[in-house]
Amino acid sequence: MSTFNVELKRVVDDSYEIEVGFELEDKLVQDIKLGLAGRVKRFAVITDSTVKELYAGKILEKLHKAGYGADLFSFEAGEKSKTRKTKEQLEDAMLEAGYRRDCCIIAVGGGVVTDIAGFVAGTYGRGVPFINYATTLLAAADASVGGKTAVDTPLATNLIGMFNQPEKVYIDIACWKTLPKNQISSGLAETIKHACLADGKFFDFLSDNMEKLLEIDREACEHIAETNCRIKYEVVMKDERESGLREVLNLGHTVGRAIETVSDYRLLHGEAVAIGLAAEVRLSVKLGHMTEAEAGRVTGLLKRAGLPVEIPDYIDREQLVKKLYTDKKVRDGRLRFVIQNGIGSIVEFKDGVFAAPIEESVAREIIMAM
Amino acid sequence: MSTFNVELKRVVDDSYEIEVGFELEDKLVQDIKLGLAGRVKRFAVITDSTVKELYAGKILEKLHKAGYGADLFSFEAGEKSKTRKTKEQLEDAMLEAGYRRDCCIIAVGGGVVTDIAGFVAGTYGRGVPFINYATTLLAAADASVGGKTAVDTPLATNLIGMFNQPEKVYIDIACWKTLPKNQISSGLAETIKHACLADGKFFDFLSDNMEKLLEIDREACEHIAETNCRIKYEVVMKDERESGLREVLNLGHTVGRAIETVSDYRLLHGEAVAIGLAAEVRLSVKLGHMTEAEAGRVTGLLKRAGLPVEIPDYIDREQLVKKLYTDKKVRDGRLRFVIQNGIGSIVEFKDGVFAAPIEESVAREIIMAM
Repeated sequence: MSTFNVELKRVVDDSYEIEVGFELEDKLVQDIKLGLAGRVKRFAVITDSTVKELYAGKILEKLHKAGYGADLFSFEAGEKSKTRKTKEQLEDAMLEAGYRRDCCIIAVGGGVVTDIAGFVAGTYGRGVPFINYATTLLAAADASVGGKTAVDTPLATNLIGMFNQPEKVYIDIACWKTLPKNQISSGLAETIKHACLADGKFFDFLSDNMEKLLEIDREACEHIAETNCRIKYEVVMKDERESGLREVLNLGHTVGRAIETVSDYRLLHGEAVAIGLAAEVRLSVKLGHMTEAEAGRVTGLLKRAGLPVEIPDYIDREQLVKKLYTDKKVRDGRLRFVIQNGIGSIVEFKDGVFAAPIEESVAREIIMAM
Repeated sequence: MSTFNVELKRVVDDSYEIEVGFELEDKLVQDIKLGLAGRVKRFAVITDSTVKELYAGKILEKLHKAGYGADLFSFEAGEKSKTRKTKEQLEDAMLEAGYRRDCCIIAVGGGVVTDIAGFVAGTYGRGVPFINYATTLLAAADASVGGKTAVDTPLATNLIGMFNQPEKVYIDIACWKTLPKNQISSGLAETIKHACLADGKFFDFLSDNMEKLLEIDREACEHIAETNCRIKYEVVMKDERESGLREVLNLGHTVGRAIETVSDYRLLHGEAVAIGLAAEVRLSVKLGHMTEAEAGRVTGLLKRAGLPVEIPDYIDREQLVKKLYTDKKVRDGRLRFVIQNGIGSIVEFKDGVFAAPIEESVAREIIMAM
């Protein structure tokens, strides 16, 4: 018997820049000229059926005009497309078009596009560079920082995927103008979540500027795009592999994801998260970490953002509780919830533990009352 | 417009140990006790239909006996199973059985098992640890070092995958005793390739000990397992992302992979590589980098290892040339071949370039003569 040591200790630099601004298509092409063009032969622009018409086509045109080889690869818009099947179809289309290891993927769209395109990039030719061009507020709030990519399977949400950092992220606020109202609201849910978990002053800003935000006021929107990035970055930086602190980002998501699934995606992600936040502030009040008044401020702001704070009637509450408590994360009959500590921080139960194990009966009581 | 910097520079340590020996099942369980057991809740033993009966079942039993939760997940043996479909089926079976992020995958088998299981591990829950328990000579020669994992698609071999390093590798030579003769030969093809590209003395060792190796003499086999690891490690270490030097490992593989595909996998990987090596030594002679005598030594050793050195009659040579020269790697009508420089090294054409662009007519001439 003998052993052989494979030494693979090295410095990895996955740093990248997030550009927040208005109409960033030319900046994108210019950055490519200065940076990637040397090591990349062709650009695969991955997008969905909605964004294809609105923005991705325009970006493709600008790439062609600048002399780059590029093609569009799109899939049916919507959360339901976030599957291994879609990933496979994109891969096959790229292979068919002759894309090899020397390509770069540009994801143009919202969170679903970012998630899938980032995952495709991570495994295409064992990894090609990719750029995120985020066209939605939700993508700006949620998907620009952290490097999480994934697809859903019938049995699990986001469980097949990888950590893959982009070359650069563009958050183009001009795109938000064409978003349907419920998409803006959906993005604001994640924004409110960030304020709730990390920044009371930001919560005040949202409260003072909600109408401006809904009208896509450029300055107010740039501020929330940047603050979303900063908050998420601070959390993710301290915990790149999601072992402890990163868990706080699950605020509102434990109930939210279950609602999203049980509604069969009739609710947008942010809408489901809003209901989840409303449930979890009730839980926080019950556990004595929040006053009724604070909880009221959170649900009030969610409502002003055009978000639901009650469980829709078409959702069977008992099925929802069952969905939550048959999840494999349940241990000893308890499911862990992130709990707000007033507005702007999270309860740290003990060192590095940011979630409380809650019994089914307690969760049922709250859900039944909503 | 504003920019936000996401700083992600850090030290990553993916080092691991390769254990070469005889009957390493108990060592595996003992290592788990000392290492992984603290952070891992369950073990998913991934294997194929052949190895399941021979070894994986035994390992599962030992894990259970030691008190660990573990299950077998197997797929139909053979190169044809190296698909996204198989990956999906393994994932679904693991999800169904309740495997989550706190599991570890143990790949028990040859190169196909290692490739798929390593890829599954890389994307399951965005990455879970995995251990390679290599049961074949080919896996020892080829799959233990480098961290390459992948599946095939109808349009490309090994193009969907990722770099993913195992926690540890076990090379159990006792398993080689149950390998069919053609599997031993297939593994020897990669071993001979390593000798050809990096180590003339190792070539002599193989030449002097071929009969012992075919009888699975323990000492001789341990020596080749170790030397395979060392040679591959030295190449891979100097070039972890396959930009330059790593290309030398493609020796014999340009033609070999094309033959493998055109034969519709009737030939084992190593058999196809052997024919590829035979083609590429002819090319090397033609280009003046090798004598006829040296080329004869290579083909002679391949034959003694029980390997083919001629293209089988059922393969259409014209189709093979076409397959090679419609590959997307072809530029200006030329395909790049790694060329041996005598026995034990590779021609470096210029700094960091280890392959020569060869015209179709030259390749055709060689292939037609085989």
